[in-house]
Amino acid sequence: MALRSSFARLLRKQADAGIQLPKQAAHSVALVGAPLSRGQKRRGVDHGPATLRAAGLVERLAGLGCQVYDFGDLNFTQVPNDELYNNLILYPRSVGLASQVLADAVSRAVAAGHSCVTIGGDHSLALGSVSGHARQCPHLGVIWVDAHADINTPLTTQSGSLHGQPLSFLLRELQDKVPQLPGFSWLKPCLSASDIVYIGLRDVDPAEYYILKNYDIQYFSMRDIDRLGIQKVMERTFEQLMGRRQRPIHLSFDIDAFDPSLAPATGTPVLGGLTYREGMYITEEIHNTGMLSAVDMVEVNPLLGASQEEVNATASLAVDVIATCFGQTREGAHTAFDELPTPSSPDESDSEEQVRI
Amino acid sequence: MALRSSFARLLRKQADAGIQLPKQAAHSVALVGAPLSRGQKRRGVDHGPATLRAAGLVERLAGLGCQVYDFGDLNFTQVPNDELYNNLILYPRSVGLASQVLADAVSRAVAAGHSCVTIGGDHSLALGSVSGHARQCPHLGVIWVDAHADINTPLTTQSGSLHGQPLSFLLRELQDKVPQLPGFSWLKPCLSASDIVYIGLRDVDPAEYYILKNYDIQYFSMRDIDRLGIQKVMERTFEQLMGRRQRPIHLSFDIDAFDPSLAPATGTPVLGGLTYREGMYITEEIHNTGMLSAVDMVEVNPLLGASQEEVNATASLAVDVIATCFGQTREGAHTAFDELPTPSSPDESDSEEQVRI
Amino acid sequence: MALRSSFARLLRKQADAGIQLPKQAAHSVALVGAPLSRGQKRRGVDHGPATLRAAGLVERLAGLGCQVYDFGDLNFTQVPNDELYNNLILYPRSVGLASQVLADAVSRAVAAGHSCVTIGGDHSLALGSVSGHARQCPHLGVIWVDAHADINTPLTTQSGSLHGQPLSFLLRELQDKVPQLPGFSWLKPCLSASDIVYIGLRDVDPAEYYILKNYDIQYFSMRDIDRLGIQKVMERTFEQLMGRRQRPIHLSFDIDAFDPSLAPATGTPVLGGLTYREGMYITEEIHNTGMLSAVDMVEVNPLLGASQEEVNATASLAVDVIATCFGQTREGAHTAFDELPTPSSPDESDSEEQVRI
Repeated sequence: MALRSSFARLLRKQADAGIQLPKQAAHSVALVGAPLSRGQKRRGVDHGPATLRAAGLVERLAGLGCQVYDFGDLNFTQVPNDELYNNLILYPRSVGLASQVLADAVSRAVAAGHSCVTIGGDHSLALGSVSGHARQCPHLGVIWVDAHADINTPLTTQSGSLHGQPLSFLLRELQDKVPQLPGFSWLKPCLSASDIVYIGLRDVDPAEYYILKNYDIQYFSMRDIDRLGIQKVMERTFEQLMGRRQRPIHLSFDIDAFDPSLAPATGTPVLGGLTYREGMYITEEIHNTGMLSAVDMVEVNPLLGASQEEVNATASLAVDVIATCFGQTREGAHTAFDELPTPSSPDESDSEEQVRI
Repeated sequence: MALRSSFARLLRKQADAGIQLPKQAAHSVALVGAPLSRGQKRRGVDHGPATLRAAGLVERLAGLGCQVYDFGDLNFTQVPNDELYNNLILYPRSVGLASQVLADAVSRAVAAGHSCVTIGGDHSLALGSVSGHARQCPHLGVIWVDAHADINTPLTTQSGSLHGQPLSFLLRELQDKVPQLPGFSWLKPCLSASDIVYIGLRDVDPAEYYILKNYDIQYFSMRDIDRLGIQKVMERTFEQLMGRRQRPIHLSFDIDAFDPSLAPATGTPVLGGLTYREGMYITEEIHNTGMLSAVDMVEVNPLLGASQEEVNATASLAVDVIATCFGQTREGAHTAFDELPTPSSPDESDSEEQVRI
Repeated sequence: MALRSSFARLLRKQADAGIQLPKQAAHSVALVGAPLSRGQKRRGVDHGPATLRAAGLVERLAGLGCQVYDFGDLNFTQVPNDELYNNLILYPRSVGLASQVLADAVSRAVAAGHSCVTIGGDHSLALGSVSGHARQCPHLGVIWVDAHADINTPLTTQSGSLHGQPLSFLLRELQDKVPQLPGFSWLKPCLSASDIVYIGLRDVDPAEYYILKNYDIQYFSMRDIDRLGIQKVMERTFEQLMGRRQRPIHLSFDIDAFDPSLAPATGTPVLGGLTYREGMYITEEIHNTGMLSAVDMVEVNPLLGASQEEVNATASLAVDVIATCFGQTREGAHTAFDELPTPSSPDESDSEEQVRI
């Protein structure tokens, strides 16, 4: 099981040799496809990476001046005889192994000097992407944009799906509340409660609410956004994460953070989500920090759109989010433009021409 | 003409005997269907109560821990020979009588210690629900969420429909401007101008505007919401109604307060209405006061959706409004959750399991 | 080439004779159709004026108490042999001549005491409407509501379409950057950079961004609206334009400023636009200044709606914008209403009527 493309080999060599890509104004972006679907029950989310590529993701990033290294999709084999853990938790070994593979890929990409974009796939992949990122950047901060808190433990989950639990495995404070699952022995908690900020919550389970409150995790629910406005929400997000010092940011973006009218092709839509403009504002602000180091874009499921139009709208929205992370702006391109051209003569027009009335 | 269900008999006995239901943290909710349609001209709004029940209203309230007493639908007989009043006003005797019956039902429900939810039906039913509520709580305050002001008098109305006039009958200050309609002799004004706050206005007739201004009634039009934001609007609403002392709140919610894109199945839609999130914020805030005592949900008309999907969306929105009034939240359930479960051994996992690479 | 209607002749006589229409509280509105389509490449925008009239524009303005003088559509003949300028710029002679004709019409309408509403047509028509308006009101200020900045020069444009360039021709500061196009010899720059405020920008070319920044032009992009809220945006708009003294306002409104979900029938839609409520707020505020002197409504293209419903929605939105410019409000009609009618006797009701139970 390995990175598939030849770029991957190149990348590994660079990382092994300790070669850092030169720091440039333009981003160097590693794109990693993570077609993980065993963290939940609905078919199709493993087609997410192909859907985002078909929506022009690579071209859009290149058009922004990014150097894009597309490593293709990771090859997640399903672990045989992957029985339920505790009669409830689905596919622990498959999800655990896939996350381990992803963690290695993300770690190598970041070590090589890239910003790493992981395109899913379901949200259990954050087990891997955050772990791999933290291996290189132990002091990272996570911005988790999502309708859901994804912080059930294997002992509080109702659904048994691991895409609703990744943060409980990643959080140091919850270590004694989380059993060791088969396939998870590689994973060590790498975040503290104060390293996370949620944005967009609107469907939180009782145990999750208990965790958010008792471990003092900063979150901005849709109610908070209604109350404060998105501008203040982002201000406070950065205060929480960067108040004392700058640190690398991991953005983990579940497309279901958006309103279902904008992102219908996803597995667990919830009414009353982010507007398009709020989504762009969030990512513009994150880009503007200059500290974005890794992005997950998860839960785009092309089989769940009611029409091709719905799938296209959802995918295009995901591409807009990622592009904005890397410099796409609404108020004008900040590309250097040195001088306006001047007409070569005071009057370049064909002088015979006269207005005819 | 009587309450139909056996619950109703029980309720009446309780009220007659002066028995109060025990005060509980969980709400005790009386649900009263009021299939009144004679306050306006379009067919179908009398199916509103059945539509809201089919959308799962009772189950949703029960799921929030409410004790729900569903009294079924009131049986509104049409009064024969119910001629126009003043050659203009439609069905005065039918609307007057139905409101009288509803007033009695609401009064009994509140006397018995319930929060009373009246599901309409057209907005003329507020003649009854507010009157009945005020019989038990003479100092109540009304929050009227609506695209329209519903405060024409029988002498200023252009349409002749009583659903555009209920507040003129309920307001003490307008008593000498409102003629005595046949069927209305039971009704005494029970509100002062300072007891009302409007939210969501965007289609106000000239006479209504005159009344709002001259009687100094507090209103927040869509323009005001655009200007102030929904957070400040709710702050000022409670300042107006509860600035000096706490008082029971009557929420009279016309589904047409929402934007027609969200609530298409209604009789008099107006562009530029509340968003889903604003609607939830309004009702969350009202719930949080702890003073909500009665709710009207009116003007859901299943015959006016262009498709079943539109009807379902409208009904589901109405259910969300009511559920939020009784504790549904977006940022997590506040149900008691005492402790996180802890794995029974440091490692509960099947110890033979190893990650295979 | 001339104004077509007999109203036009009347108007010209009034203007020639120096006759001013009496100043009234109610607006006197001149309506000028400008079916200009040569400023861009898509068929159909020349049907804009007919589409807005069919959507009831004249009746709506009349219903608000405006005196409406509908001058019909200007007759724009295409200039033969209108070759590309500089191998790139499309139809310079046709656009130049049409704008000249429109400038004359707007100038006469304003001279005659009307507020002038120009209905397009593509946005290159602002070459004419602003020039004509400035001929009578040299100190006017322009509010340009648009997804695009429309300020490329003929030497920076990528598309060659003149509807993306009108402001470069109108701006004094850019005079030496703009070549003399055939058909444009009549046009003299009439605006300074400080006379313009943009609202709604979200698709700005690099050269345009350079101009906005280097010439210190005030703009509020969608990001700024997200950040500040529409209320503050309008406050700052008026500070910029009227901080030192009152001046006539020219509102140039491109329907693509709205979100494509609201205004789909237009040539260059861009995601993430104004909401209906923001559009109404902008125009309510402009009306409230009392200084609105001319309005352009451009880029409604009935051939680009996916359905008749989409065309109707777009046209109806444009009519709402214009009506709000001339006094339509959401919070009540400010028409005089002197007194509430009082019942002729204490009890006007039929006294035999009794409530039957």
